[in-house]
Amino acid sequence: MNSVTELLQAHRSIRKFKETPLDQETIRELVKSAQAASTSSYVQAYSILGVTDKDKKAALRAISTQPYVEDNGHLFVFLVDYHRHIELSKDKGTPISHDKTEQFVVGTVDASLAAQNLAVAAESMGLGMCYIGSLRNDMAEVIEILELPEGVFPVFGMVVGYPDHEGSQKERLPFEAVYHENTYTPTAKVKPEIDAYDERIRSYYEGRTGGERRDSWSDQVIGMLGKKQRLDVDAVVKRQGFLGQ
Amino acid sequence: MNSVTELLQAHRSIRKFKETPLDQETIRELVKSAQAASTSSYVQAYSILGVTDKDKKAALRAISTQPYVEDNGHLFVFLVDYHRHIELSKDKGTPISHDKTEQFVVGTVDASLAAQNLAVAAESMGLGMCYIGSLRNDMAEVIEILELPEGVFPVFGMVVGYPDHEGSQKERLPFEAVYHENTYTPTAKVKPEIDAYDERIRSYYEGRTGGERRDSWSDQVIGMLGKKQRLDVDAVVKRQGFLGQ
Repeated sequence: MNSVTELLQAHRSIRKFKETPLDQETIRELVKSAQAASTSSYVQAYSILGVTDKDKKAALRAISTQPYVEDNGHLFVFLVDYHRHIELSKDKGTPISHDKTEQFVVGTVDASLAAQNLAVAAESMGLGMCYIGSLRNDMAEVIEILELPEGVFPVFGMVVGYPDHEGSQKERLPFEAVYHENTYTPTAKVKPEIDAYDERIRSYYEGRTGGERRDSWSDQVIGMLGKKQRLDVDAVVKRQGFLGQ
Repeated sequence: MNSVTELLQAHRSIRKFKETPLDQETIRELVKSAQAASTSSYVQAYSILGVTDKDKKAALRAISTQPYVEDNGHLFVFLVDYHRHIELSKDKGTPISHDKTEQFVVGTVDASLAAQNLAVAAESMGLGMCYIGSLRNDMAEVIEILELPEGVFPVFGMVVGYPDHEGSQKERLPFEAVYHENTYTPTAKVKPEIDAYDERIRSYYEGRTGGERRDSWSDQVIGMLGKKQRLDVDAVVKRQGFLGQ
């Protein structure tokens, strides 16, 4: 391990922040680090939107239901963004298309690589962060609040700030269950490792909640994936011009 | 800047590597760093597949057309992966669904956050890396070569290794064009900044190619987005059980 891999492997999400807002210089440094990430074919199909307006933050918190969407050092919203390409293509008279699954993948990957660089940069400065997937609870409303044009959708948010708690680290799946070589390892083959992992996660929750919570990793995620959630995401991204047939 | 933001902002893609393969310890350390990234609701909807088999690497190079897909220290393929969740849900008798746009977004984001952590970890060790989006030139063939089951698709690859050239850094869009505050900045408002950027990119290409290449950033990306490429990605991800209606 070196100091960087140590930083990466020490990651824990922070969900309570001191009141101090990030200053402009810090925001610029974070965005600059985000932009330095790789981008598919140089297309840079994303934008980053900072939200400081109190009413907008309160409205986004209502969608997310998480108090830290309102109370943080800075709230970033990551946008998959082909709008500037569309506008520039009009000037040139060369129409472009962003409506296929390929461009949806490119934009989502581009935004995510940039976001993860921003997360790492923040943690290197002693700041804490947490991704906000729950903006997708009502993507249409987020689009309205932030007045997002055609060719743009908010893929997730991220809160950053000065930590006001320690956070806790959640163990990841065993190496053997996630890393495959040359061909996909059948799940049955790594079932013993996953079972042992499930047992460790169960003990972790049990310890943290004084025995109240006893679900394993697979209980938790299979329960969640069994619910039909965020079914409107499809219609909303299509309305923004994505995933056409 | 600190040493981490300096590392992030110094990123350049490496496309020529020494013959030395990565050792097992390095691969483990990279994957461990990747896994430490945030994951949506703890779902861990991705896998990482290392390819060392010579025939498979040659076949993947043919799809990508890039020689460094074959000649590198290690080739990673990042998979959006709900297969293990599907298998575990069968054991529990609780069916799950991964076929909505929401789960497609979650898996693509999860895989990308992990990949970017792996990229940063590699660069912190003095290794070089390059993303391989061109595996999507023929996603169906990649699935066959790597024998990927239901609920899995290869979203991109990444080559890592000991650099055998310097690489060059490509300037990103101006801060004002990528960072918005409270609402989306109309493209027309940042057009002067984009024009100046286009001019700098044009000069960069001109200098690098002795005047042969003269396209700006917007020429380049609008040209690319005007071509109908990788139209089969949609059908292939649907066959793997994603993006159902």
